[in-house]
Amino acid sequence: MKRFGKIATVLATCMLVASPALAAEKVRWKLAMSWSSTLTPLAAAAPKLADMVSKMSGGNFEIRVEGAEKHKAALGILDMVKGGQYEMGHSASYYWKGKDISSVFFTTVPFGMTSNEQYAWFYYGDGQTLQDKAFEKFDVLSYPGGNTGVQMGGWFKKEIASVDDLKGLKMRIPGVAGEIFAKLGVAVTNIPPGELYTSLDRGTIDALEWVGPGMDIKMGFHKIAPYYYTGWHEPGAEMHYLINKKAFEQLSPEYQAILTTAIKAVTADQTAMNFDANARAWAQIKAEYPDIKIMSFPPAVLKEMKKANDEVMSDYAAKDPLFKEIWENQKAYMADVREWTRMSDYLYIKTVEALQE
Amino acid sequence: MKRFGKIATVLATCMLVASPALAAEKVRWKLAMSWSSTLTPLAAAAPKLADMVSKMSGGNFEIRVEGAEKHKAALGILDMVKGGQYEMGHSASYYWKGKDISSVFFTTVPFGMTSNEQYAWFYYGDGQTLQDKAFEKFDVLSYPGGNTGVQMGGWFKKEIASVDDLKGLKMRIPGVAGEIFAKLGVAVTNIPPGELYTSLDRGTIDALEWVGPGMDIKMGFHKIAPYYYTGWHEPGAEMHYLINKKAFEQLSPEYQAILTTAIKAVTADQTAMNFDANARAWAQIKAEYPDIKIMSFPPAVLKEMKKANDEVMSDYAAKDPLFKEIWENQKAYMADVREWTRMSDYLYIKTVEALQE
Repeated sequence: MKRFGKIATVLATCMLVASPALAAEKVRWKLAMSWSSTLTPLAAAAPKLADMVSKMSGGNFEIRVEGAEKHKAALGILDMVKGGQYEMGHSASYYWKGKDISSVFFTTVPFGMTSNEQYAWFYYGDGQTLQDKAFEKFDVLSYPGGNTGVQMGGWFKKEIASVDDLKGLKMRIPGVAGEIFAKLGVAVTNIPPGELYTSLDRGTIDALEWVGPGMDIKMGFHKIAPYYYTGWHEPGAEMHYLINKKAFEQLSPEYQAILTTAIKAVTADQTAMNFDANARAWAQIKAEYPDIKIMSFPPAVLKEMKKANDEVMSDYAAKDPLFKEIWENQKAYMADVREWTRMSDYLYIKTVEALQE
Repeated sequence: MKRFGKIATVLATCMLVASPALAAEKVRWKLAMSWSSTLTPLAAAAPKLADMVSKMSGGNFEIRVEGAEKHKAALGILDMVKGGQYEMGHSASYYWKGKDISSVFFTTVPFGMTSNEQYAWFYYGDGQTLQDKAFEKFDVLSYPGGNTGVQMGGWFKKEIASVDDLKGLKMRIPGVAGEIFAKLGVAVTNIPPGELYTSLDRGTIDALEWVGPGMDIKMGFHKIAPYYYTGWHEPGAEMHYLINKKAFEQLSPEYQAILTTAIKAVTADQTAMNFDANARAWAQIKAEYPDIKIMSFPPAVLKEMKKANDEVMSDYAAKDPLFKEIWENQKAYMADVREWTRMSDYLYIKTVEALQE
């Protein structure tokens, strides 16, 4: 009895120290990114997430991050996470608009919400609920995963003063924005990233859209195009973390909480990282190329873009009930949240700007 | 030998399951908030933090949150966390500008950064480092803890068309903004929150500043003041989580990571919560009181405010080297980051606004 008593004491102590036993379970996951490992600041986020999860679990829950240079399937993240080759992914949901057109809403849409507005919609409006509804069929969980901020309208070799200036213009711009430009007479082309600089330099194209200063600076477009247009088509592009649903359900409640909390933390961190990177990169570009002009498309051009956008969106909505539901939900939320953006950040900047005149 | 062998086996198993043993340590902390438990959305954040930490630790690390109605020391959070009565606090660092004037920079300053700019400064500029430097002497750790967004300039009974309209105006506005208004001839008064509505209603004061729609709506000022001015004095008021340094150092590395990750996650969550609350509250106020006018102070008035602000800030900087260091750091960072805000969110809203004209 004495012997078992001692073992029992050890066990009891052990259970006290070990509780919850599941939290110490060894978990080894893999995460696939849509971008190559060197494409910072985008590629810096998932390794940070892995580091947070590792530290919180005492090294027991490890996530190995792999870039597109390894898995060679930049646009195949959803399939790989659904299929379980990777338990997680870091990507942008509008990459799979071919599978479900509604997925564009969880990244960004033309004339849509800014990052602040969109986070309010995701976390305190119906955003996450609608996203869950859209992704259910893929057997994955999806969470906001860091915002690029407003994406710039692109680099142009000549000024766009009217809708006529767009007619026949050769431009690289993908997605819904490409559909809109095509409606306005632009010859929209698709060119691999590695050939963009040369194409623009040699006049194969007259303009191109990439991301924003933080990413654009490495591409060197500022050396060959004098006009940098402000954004309208991706006002707050949100990345996403995907998780294989079955893998998530096999985690202990503690690890589930560790993972989703880390995702929320790294998402905010990346949004700040991108904001900082854009500010620094633009300061550098401006210092080295002081003649680059920041331009906004004139109201007459934007009006045509808006009209074309409403047509494109209405067409999708007529065909797809979920698209319609999410679009109407976003529009209703935007009506209120935009009013607040206008009263707060927008009028603050506007009044402070006026001081410099 | 056999007996000890069995115990050794149990112990070995135990260590495998329990590793890291420290992660299962029972920790019971208390957190004091500067606000009462019913003052949502402000008071909703710390309980969310406690819930995240509890879930990630399997209920082993529990934080009991207490509001000001319990500890009766709304402005004494720093002292209580320093002294160890509470391991944590949720407050706003500018409340203790009497102890160190530099603490204002970690909340917000007039004509300073917006929330997006400030998070970039905290996480990717020198913000957190300078904050650590400022708080070292108090033996506490301090982290950003959620942003109210741009605070409104206040509720006014009559329009402010010129600097003359400010002379003799009786207004409740605390802090540096109060010093600035005083320089412009305003009779700045301090009135307890519970008496503000009656004071404004009876004409004891002509104007008052509170927070923004999400908080102001409960105070009812919109029922008695027809002008709601946009903000200039608190463009991105950040709350803070304080941690007693010794208590933090006694935590296991896992719990330290769990706590700081949860703080980052709940900070982003609260910023989104406030954005949403402001948008909804303003929509409600506007629906019920459609005649309320959103006004901005005219450029001539803002110019005088800016001049007075520069005087106040220069005076502090002349007396306090740390204040000077942080102010110069913020100004240098702002020069770049504001340019990006202008190119991105500001010009996006401006071009989209123009479509409605």
